[in-house]
Amino acid sequence: MARSSSGESVLERVVRILEAFTPEERALTVGEIARRAGLPLATGSRMVADLVEQGLLTRDADRRVRVGMRLWELASRASPTLSLRELAMPVLEDLLRTVGHHAQLGVLDGGEVLFVERLSTEHAVINYTRIAARLPLHASSSGLVLLAHAAPQLQQRVLDAPLARFTPATITDPDDLRRRLAHVRRHGYVLCPGHLHPDATGIAVPVRDEAGAVVAAVSVIVPNDEQARGYVATLTAAARRIEKLLAH
Amino acid sequence: MARSSSGESVLERVVRILEAFTPEERALTVGEIARRAGLPLATGSRMVADLVEQGLLTRDADRRVRVGMRLWELASRASPTLSLRELAMPVLEDLLRTVGHHAQLGVLDGGEVLFVERLSTEHAVINYTRIAARLPLHASSSGLVLLAHAAPQLQQRVLDAPLARFTPATITDPDDLRRRLAHVRRHGYVLCPGHLHPDATGIAVPVRDEAGAVVAAVSVIVPNDEQARGYVATLTAAARRIEKLLAH
Repeated sequence: MARSSSGESVLERVVRILEAFTPEERALTVGEIARRAGLPLATGSRMVADLVEQGLLTRDADRRVRVGMRLWELASRASPTLSLRELAMPVLEDLLRTVGHHAQLGVLDGGEVLFVERLSTEHAVINYTRIAARLPLHASSSGLVLLAHAAPQLQQRVLDAPLARFTPATITDPDDLRRRLAHVRRHGYVLCPGHLHPDATGIAVPVRDEAGAVVAAVSVIVPNDEQARGYVATLTAAARRIEKLLAH
Repeated sequence: MARSSSGESVLERVVRILEAFTPEERALTVGEIARRAGLPLATGSRMVADLVEQGLLTRDADRRVRVGMRLWELASRASPTLSLRELAMPVLEDLLRTVGHHAQLGVLDGGEVLFVERLSTEHAVINYTRIAARLPLHASSSGLVLLAHAAPQLQQRVLDAPLARFTPATITDPDDLRRRLAHVRRHGYVLCPGHLHPDATGIAVPVRDEAGAVVAAVSVIVPNDEQARGYVATLTAAARRIEKLLAH
C-alpha cells in the first residue's frame, strides 16, 4: 500500500484520523483532526476530504466533521462478533430484566475486553463500560473470564506486565491473578466485588462456540450489597442460551 | 491521498475490499477479496496485509479473512447516530414488548434508510430489515418518514427516478408518493400494509432533535391482519420518549 516519505502507510494515517474522535468530542474541525492525528494541515485536509467523499466521515453545515454511518455499516454487516451480539440480544434483555443494573457482552480484542453490547436500567449502579469501550483484562470480571481461556502467551504477557490498580480490591499481584484464572477455569464464573469501582460488583461467565472455544464473556454489574453469588446460576443459564442460539 | 495509476484513491480500494464481505459470506480468502474488489492479486494481498496489521481485518488459522472488531470500534465510539441508538434502546425494548414482532430505528444515509437497530421476537412476522441493512426510501415505512422530511433535492431525485416495485402495494407512482409524503408531514406517521412484503405492515413515525429536525424514524413491523393503526399512538409516545432522552 502507498506509503508517505516517513514510511507510514495511508491506512495508519486513516486509523489515526478516526482515533481523533472520542465519545466526548464527536465533532471536530479539520485543524483539530490534523493536530490530533499528527499530520500536516494540508495532508489532514486532503485525507478528510477523501474520507468524506467515501462517506466514512461526514461534514456538517458548520464545517465540523463527524464519523459517518457508512463506516459502521461496513464494520457491522459481515462481522462474526456482531452476529453473535445480535443473537445474544434477547438473552441480554432477559438478563437485564432479571438482574437489573447492567448486562454486558464482551470479547477479547487486542489484549483487552471490548464491549460489544451494554444494556442498562435507568437507576443502575455506576459502571465504566460503554458500548465499544475497552477495559483491561485483569481488572474486570469479563476480562478475567476471557483471560482465563486466552492463549498462554497472552496470559504470560499480562502476568509479566504491571497490573494497574483501580481500587484497593483490584488484583495487582501476579500470583493472585494466576490463582483467580485457575478458579475461573475450574468453576466457570468470576465475582469481582469493587475491583474497578468500590461500589460495584462484576460477575462474568464464558460463552463458548460449538468447538468449545470461549468466544465472549457475558456479565452483569450490580451494587456490592446485593447477593451477587445468587446471580451466577442466572448468568450461566444465559450463557447456555446464547450458546444454543450460536449452534443453530 | 495517494492514488494508483488509475487515479483511484487508496481509500476507494479499502472501501471496495470491505464491501467484498457480506452477511452471507463473512470469511473470504485473499483471492476472493481481490476478485470481488476488482484488484490485482498482488495489490489485494498487500492491502489485506495492511488492513490486518491495523486490526481492521483479521486472519484466521485457516488463512481466511474476516472483518475485525477494531473497525467497528472506530466506527461506533464517537458516532452521533449510534449514541442516539444507545439512548433509544430501552424505548425500543418497551416497544417490542408492547407490539411484538419487530421494533426498528432507521436513519437517512446515502439516499436510503440505514437500520441502526432491529429488535425482534422469536416468532415475529417476516421482515427484510437487518441491523446495518438498507432499504429504499419509497418502499418502506421508515423510508417514507425520512423522505418526507428530507432536503427538497433528495425528494426530487427520488420522485424523478424509477420507483422499484416489491409487491402490488408498493408506491410506484410519483404523484402517489408526493401525496403520501404530504400525509406523513401533516399526520406524523405512515402505515404501509404489504408495501415490501405481502404479509407485513410497517408503521413509522419521525424522531426529532431539539431543533426540530428529523434525525431518525422509529418503526414496528406487524402482520397485516393486526390493527396496525392502533399502534400509531404507541409509536408516537415512543418517539417522544426518545426525543426527551436526546434533549438531555
